[in-house]
Amino acid sequence: MEQINLSIDCLVLGYSDDQKLKALLIKKIINKDNDLQYALPGDLVGYDEDLNTASKRILKNLTSLSDVFLKQFYTFGNPNRTKHKKDQDWLNIYRKRPKERVVTIGYMALVKMEDYKPGPSSFAFEVEWVSIDDVPKNMAFDHNIILNKGIEFLRNQMNNEFISNLLPRKFTLSQLQNLHEIILNQKLDKRNFRKNILKVENIKRTEERQEGVPHKPAFLYQFSKN
Amino acid sequence: MEQINLSIDCLVLGYSDDQKLKALLIKKIINKDNDLQYALPGDLVGYDEDLNTASKRILKNLTSLSDVFLKQFYTFGNPNRTKHKKDQDWLNIYRKRPKERVVTIGYMALVKMEDYKPGPSSFAFEVEWVSIDDVPKNMAFDHNIILNKGIEFLRNQMNNEFISNLLPRKFTLSQLQNLHEIILNQKLDKRNFRKNILKVENIKRTEERQEGVPHKPAFLYQFSKN
Repeated sequence: MEQINLSIDCLVLGYSDDQKLKALLIKKIINKDNDLQYALPGDLVGYDEDLNTASKRILKNLTSLSDVFLKQFYTFGNPNRTKHKKDQDWLNIYRKRPKERVVTIGYMALVKMEDYKPGPSSFAFEVEWVSIDDVPKNMAFDHNIILNKGIEFLRNQMNNEFISNLLPRKFTLSQLQNLHEIILNQKLDKRNFRKNILKVENIKRTEERQEGVPHKPAFLYQFSKN
Repeated sequence: MEQINLSIDCLVLGYSDDQKLKALLIKKIINKDNDLQYALPGDLVGYDEDLNTASKRILKNLTSLSDVFLKQFYTFGNPNRTKHKKDQDWLNIYRKRPKERVVTIGYMALVKMEDYKPGPSSFAFEVEWVSIDDVPKNMAFDHNIILNKGIEFLRNQMNNEFISNLLPRKFTLSQLQNLHEIILNQKLDKRNFRKNILKVENIKRTEERQEGVPHKPAFLYQFSKN
């Protein structure tokens, strides 16, 4: 029977004393010649297992890390993500049904590196902190894509214009503030809001003013592309 | 055989002229008495179907919306999320294996409401824009949880301290800037960075300075709780 399997892969990031962002990777033995392959720590979810519980179990099982706050960031579902030749060897050794589709959920942890002492267990042969600039391009499955998506997720935490889709192309600062207030679920100080938003976001004033307002129509603003 | 099924639920949000944030909901007929239940538009993923492709197909199939940018925001995997009595009636009508676990991936779209004219099709009996304050508490499955998580996701896009986990409890502004630069993958202007970050984030200066630096040790900062 055709079945979708579900797995979890963990992207654990630390910021080292030499000011590098590092990912915690495992090395797996992928064939009978004992060739090693880098991978994110990851494994299948149990049939009755809650996803957050599974993420902790899997990370601990492979890297010995416990008491880590893991946050889900993205689910990866390319139907061919496990079909590459480099991965089928390993799957043939470790999985009952190596040909079946596996959808995987990415979980991220951001940790203070000095607080944790990882060590390999289960099918992890080694565990290693690798600077994100030095991660090999041929990690298992789509793990390079998962790593990149995780970094992108972090970036979006810091700076985002996704919500601009909700607004008309040109809008007043009152509309923008109201939208922020609804989403943040709190009232914002008008003066501070305007000062900060114009500094942080790519918003610029147009020469147009709102229509249908008899008294002091407000200027319209728009997001500038770049 | 015990199997995890995979579905997608779509949270389409619009911002209305009367300045309300609204979600696009469907109503489903859940029993032979034709009782109606509100739900997010959602359905099962096909065995060979890419997730992003599936999200568009499902939204179009139930609400007639097409050309909508859908962004994945969270995957929901409580093993009991479809086991509630209120949902089993519907599952018994529409699903071959109503008892099996279903993990669902939430996708969000933010749209300008005037650009889209939704209409019900497939098992959606009606389609309706509902202000998020007026959404009934008893939507299908865990759809109220999905809605709330989606709103939380939007909030986090705007303001986040997740990355503070990467830093020592006390840190210099240089460290904070370097970390931002790595994640954003661009150099930042020191003066602007400091001015803005102290305004936007909950960061306060301590009375301590960094150690082991012979010349002009920098002040240490920390995130203030609130």
